[in-house]
Amino acid sequence: MPVLVMKFGGTSVANLDRIRRAAKRVGVEVAKGYDVIVIVSAMSGKTNELVGWVGETSPLYDAREYDAVVSSGENVTAGLMALTLQEMDIPARSWQGWQVPLKTTSAHSQARIEEIPPENINAKFAEGMKVAVVAGFQGISPEGRITTLGRGGSDTTAVAFAAAFDAERCDIYTDVDGVYTTDPRICGKARKLDKIAFEEMLELASLGAKVLQTRSVELAMRYKVKLRVLSSFEEQSDEAGTLVCDEEEIMESNVVNGVAYSRDEAKLTVQSVADRPGIAATIFTTLSDAGVNVDMIVQDVSEDGRTDMTFSCPTDQVARAEKALLAIKEQGELNYAELLADKDVAKVSVVGIGMRSQSGVAAKMFKVLSGEGINIKVITTSEIKISVLIDRKYMELAVQALHDAFELEKAR
Amino acid sequence: MPVLVMKFGGTSVANLDRIRRAAKRVGVEVAKGYDVIVIVSAMSGKTNELVGWVGETSPLYDAREYDAVVSSGENVTAGLMALTLQEMDIPARSWQGWQVPLKTTSAHSQARIEEIPPENINAKFAEGMKVAVVAGFQGISPEGRITTLGRGGSDTTAVAFAAAFDAERCDIYTDVDGVYTTDPRICGKARKLDKIAFEEMLELASLGAKVLQTRSVELAMRYKVKLRVLSSFEEQSDEAGTLVCDEEEIMESNVVNGVAYSRDEAKLTVQSVADRPGIAATIFTTLSDAGVNVDMIVQDVSEDGRTDMTFSCPTDQVARAEKALLAIKEQGELNYAELLADKDVAKVSVVGIGMRSQSGVAAKMFKVLSGEGINIKVITTSEIKISVLIDRKYMELAVQALHDAFELEKAR
Repeated sequence: MPVLVMKFGGTSVANLDRIRRAAKRVGVEVAKGYDVIVIVSAMSGKTNELVGWVGETSPLYDAREYDAVVSSGENVTAGLMALTLQEMDIPARSWQGWQVPLKTTSAHSQARIEEIPPENINAKFAEGMKVAVVAGFQGISPEGRITTLGRGGSDTTAVAFAAAFDAERCDIYTDVDGVYTTDPRICGKARKLDKIAFEEMLELASLGAKVLQTRSVELAMRYKVKLRVLSSFEEQSDEAGTLVCDEEEIMESNVVNGVAYSRDEAKLTVQSVADRPGIAATIFTTLSDAGVNVDMIVQDVSEDGRTDMTFSCPTDQVARAEKALLAIKEQGELNYAELLADKDVAKVSVVGIGMRSQSGVAAKMFKVLSGEGINIKVITTSEIKISVLIDRKYMELAVQALHDAFELEKAR
Repeated sequence: MPVLVMKFGGTSVANLDRIRRAAKRVGVEVAKGYDVIVIVSAMSGKTNELVGWVGETSPLYDAREYDAVVSSGENVTAGLMALTLQEMDIPARSWQGWQVPLKTTSAHSQARIEEIPPENINAKFAEGMKVAVVAGFQGISPEGRITTLGRGGSDTTAVAFAAAFDAERCDIYTDVDGVYTTDPRICGKARKLDKIAFEEMLELASLGAKVLQTRSVELAMRYKVKLRVLSSFEEQSDEAGTLVCDEEEIMESNVVNGVAYSRDEAKLTVQSVADRPGIAATIFTTLSDAGVNVDMIVQDVSEDGRTDMTFSCPTDQVARAEKALLAIKEQGELNYAELLADKDVAKVSVVGIGMRSQSGVAAKMFKVLSGEGINIKVITTSEIKISVLIDRKYMELAVQALHDAFELEKAR
């Protein structure tokens, strides 16, 4: 039997009615002849509640206990989904991560999947089970303890299962009906894309478009898993949603296919550090050791042998960055004047695989922003993306202006 | 190190503050030099919520999925308790049933404990862990699926751990400060007992005194586990609560030590069945196969070769009993006139190991009830217990009158 993976996020299983609605979608695919692996998240709000309890109990918590607590929400949904399917006379059973087993590293609360042996579940498919309902987001460490994959890890679980079971497709059911050129909440002209290349989706995902977790897209790209994002709240055809696929499958593409943004960015400047080899390494090794995810980096022109080093990181890591940099200053490992943090910034990016073959995108972007009187603080580029850090208050304006300028409302 | 088992029920871990309070109690015992095994229930209300969801999803649910869902509440508490202890600088970790592993039968939702290999937890004690926090109520079947032990199963978990680890004592922390001669809510003169014999506790537990689960007392009796019931809401000394122990440890005892009651009883009468060998077997085998827990049985005097068979069972099993008996009537396996169900009854019992050596208790009980104008519908007795079924409206009156008559307000 061909295998299909279907993943339902928190809002798609938020209560018993929604679980029933999701189960009906599963029933449609079972009727087509698929063996289905359903990956479920916790009912929406549950994981946040559990995370809140852990944080309140122990601010610097033991990540192993965090995982043991936080993984429980998915177990509840998995059991309820299996029961709902059984009520529809569809042979189903639930699987917790350790039962599959979904083997991960020991990096608790952000474990990586190492292996998903398909034997246990395939044995049940061979016995007539039609649906394996798997609790998403969780696995088991080599030490036999429960691990979790980081927030949004159920998407990654789904793609990993699709790869391990050579599934025909991995359908991600969520509360939006696909991937848009930008966030429809801040740009009324946003348009749903029928197809998007893995690379583009990856940039959009890592830039804050919350439709799919970045790691799930990376994994899908690596294993060539066809990924479809679609709404669990609408009747669906086989062509619904957005297909995330190889760029070869997309005939023609706009130069820019999406405008992404992220409010969750802060800009930090280490003022007046010595401009000599090794200084950048000292700063960014320190930040990396402190668990700070540095994104953009800019080094100012040197003056009198000293320079400013500016970087961005998620807002909630600013305190950690400040603490780490102060520590090495006090230990005499780094000499700098001042550390300035600016949390009132936002990142806006344009993404498109067409950029590879067409120049002038950056110039056009900067012109559009300057035409709106928006000052650019930091710039980074990749092959298919240009990102700028700007004052947060201009974020919506920037997104709308760029969406217009690159004519994203028009289908390719 | 001597081992102590401490069990905290749902109200004792109902929120983070109560978990902290419970953890402080654990800290007191750790400071005395114990290696402690803490058994936790789900936060109060959680299990009921989960059971409700399962029932709403699937009225005749797959018990394996019920167990997978319902066991999750204890996992949350176990993790939070471990984190709380760690915050107090007490080395602790959580254990889910399958991690211990607590091995059970495959009888899902009412599994029995088969074995608790102490090696894994003892290895951690040897490494310096002071507290093993174990999720109560759950285990793992030979098939590798999660099982639960039936409602209140955390008491049984606690006693089983005390037996497996040869613990010095098993302390059951709950929302009452011990075992009373009867329910203080319906009899103001109820008195807390300092000690009670296993056998008496067993009768009280099975009669509806909800302090301890029956199976936990059976297990404690079999393995001679000293069991103490005490309140998690009061400062505790070593002598607090009620010790459940061998009757040899109790110097002198009243003839009657407790008056128990249960509202959750119904009386069923199978009218006019043939009075010949095998009829009782037919009726009660049928009921047993249907999962009806028959308690009291009375057979009327025969008349014209026919008789009435009366029995009691829990109220929520009446529908099941009716269905099963109707089925064998329709199949021609049993001929009877009418099946009458009376749900407006209650069971009241007096319990005391002193009854073994002193006669006249039954006579006194019946006299007291008749003196209050209470009609007895069914009677059963054991060596240390006399139970009667009466109209439910007289229940409180009967309990109070019996408590007075046997002078239970006076210490032995």
